[in-house]
Amino acid sequence: MTEGDLAAVRAGDRRALARLLTQVENQTPAAEAALAALFPHTGRAHLIGVTGAPGTGKSSLVAELAKVLRRQGESVAIVAVDPTSPFTGGAILGDRIRMRDLAGDPGVFIRSMASRGALGGLARTTADAVQVLDAAGFNRVIVETVGAGQSEVEIARTAQTVLVVEAPGLGDEVQGIKAGILEIADVLVVNKADLPGAETALRALRASLEIGHSAARRDTAAGWTPPIVATVAVHGQGLEELAGALDRHRDHLRASGADNARERARLAGDLESRLRGALYQRLLAQLEPGQFAQTVDKLQLRELDPAGAVRQLLEAAGPLS
Amino acid sequence: MTEGDLAAVRAGDRRALARLLTQVENQTPAAEAALAALFPHTGRAHLIGVTGAPGTGKSSLVAELAKVLRRQGESVAIVAVDPTSPFTGGAILGDRIRMRDLAGDPGVFIRSMASRGALGGLARTTADAVQVLDAAGFNRVIVETVGAGQSEVEIARTAQTVLVVEAPGLGDEVQGIKAGILEIADVLVVNKADLPGAETALRALRASLEIGHSAARRDTAAGWTPPIVATVAVHGQGLEELAGALDRHRDHLRASGADNARERARLAGDLESRLRGALYQRLLAQLEPGQFAQTVDKLQLRELDPAGAVRQLLEAAGPLS
Repeated sequence: MTEGDLAAVRAGDRRALARLLTQVENQTPAAEAALAALFPHTGRAHLIGVTGAPGTGKSSLVAELAKVLRRQGESVAIVAVDPTSPFTGGAILGDRIRMRDLAGDPGVFIRSMASRGALGGLARTTADAVQVLDAAGFNRVIVETVGAGQSEVEIARTAQTVLVVEAPGLGDEVQGIKAGILEIADVLVVNKADLPGAETALRALRASLEIGHSAARRDTAAGWTPPIVATVAVHGQGLEELAGALDRHRDHLRASGADNARERARLAGDLESRLRGALYQRLLAQLEPGQFAQTVDKLQLRELDPAGAVRQLLEAAGPLS
Repeated sequence: MTEGDLAAVRAGDRRALARLLTQVENQTPAAEAALAALFPHTGRAHLIGVTGAPGTGKSSLVAELAKVLRRQGESVAIVAVDPTSPFTGGAILGDRIRMRDLAGDPGVFIRSMASRGALGGLARTTADAVQVLDAAGFNRVIVETVGAGQSEVEIARTAQTVLVVEAPGLGDEVQGIKAGILEIADVLVVNKADLPGAETALRALRASLEIGHSAARRDTAAGWTPPIVATVAVHGQGLEELAGALDRHRDHLRASGADNARERARLAGDLESRLRGALYQRLLAQLEPGQFAQTVDKLQLRELDPAGAVRQLLEAAGPLS
């Protein structure tokens, strides 16, 4: 990308942004260079992660939340992540339709990201996309995950404020799934609060919170009890209260210094995964062609065990420089 | 572990197995040594991965399938994986109750695994647990994932035969989630086939399969069209047909050589992740104390970008030996 392209990205130019995000998705060298150039301009947006079990109406909620934030004069970028669709990436199109209302607004930018490869690839490209949108000057960057597995939880956790969405009347198995993600919540939403069982869901959540909010979160956000907000996203109910809760959490993070701690943890994790990747590339470059494959042959013949294979390849490569 | 302990594991001794699996979960050096010693005895079990959206009744299906396999004289190990519960690990206890019927049978071994740490940790410990159960001589090792995210899909994919469970009448969002996992299916099940909408679900699945089975799977399993089996697990219906479909898939893998290709891909992926981990440990050992933290400081102050941080640390560490 040229200097001009980067300036356009920083100014929030939609076409320049879309082009760069495609580069980011494909993890090209151009994306790498642009991310390095944009890095000094990151760290300003409020990063909001949204997760929750299927059927809770996350997409509608995010769309309505974006509208409220827009009315407050905030610019909003939405990254919709679908780690459950490793090949097609088409599964979430239906939900995206709900975001059409936002389509004409220059203060809103929406991007869907689907996984294209191995586990971890999507976490990487999502984190990079968030950096780009942060550098582009959006006040809020919302990352919404479609699934409810561990990778989604990990993606949501990289945000400063994690919003976990529940809904009444989901089946037992779905309720079970929520138990894990509840613990990473900074703000809880019971959406579809006009359905039967909403009061029960609210009570159950309050009880869960009393039993103990996650130690994993508590250490960086001492003194914060996740508020529980009831919403009916499709009717626009409860969204202003939700926006207020998100603001209060951001203020709390700043006042307590927890935002620095969270950013630090994110930067350290990112650095570690980059180092692992770089080291592995160096190793491969120092091996003879076919050496890795031959070692896999020996594993398959059970002539070598995996730990022995690691020793053999590290020895064969010699000191890495 | 002593030689005697390892012999007990290979003989399928339950207490020795349980002890070793705890070591595996905690990724201890003793587990590493045991896995190396057991490795030559692996590669014999039929590895079956079971995944599907929440609410499809996967756990009941696995329990009933295990009963059918037992009647056919096969020994069965079940690993129930819950990646959605990174902290508590307690979310799936309710489902496990359904497996109580199997508890007294010495030919059945059941183990729940919950994630204890970072993304990827559970994939590693699950793969290792499967190796242990394979070496212990179980004819079938079934890995059942609770969530429906990408990590679950990745875990299921490491099996030889991937069974994807659907059910009629799930919401739109849940249906969306299934689109991604459908593509990795070797055998499809419509469970709860006595519910309204079962015929529609079956037709939709057949149509999806005609549109095109995953290229990613097709290359290693040419000539296989995933059969669709209707079951009512809680009434034991359709389970023998399902067991037959699993057998046919295993026979197909053997006849086509695809089982070797899949094992090879699994071993290569495992080797790569071990190498990445080993290299990173070597790097850390060669850095000055505090050097990593200082680099994160500079990142946080935006004095350095992530790619620059990688270069700086690799240079500081010098050649890795």
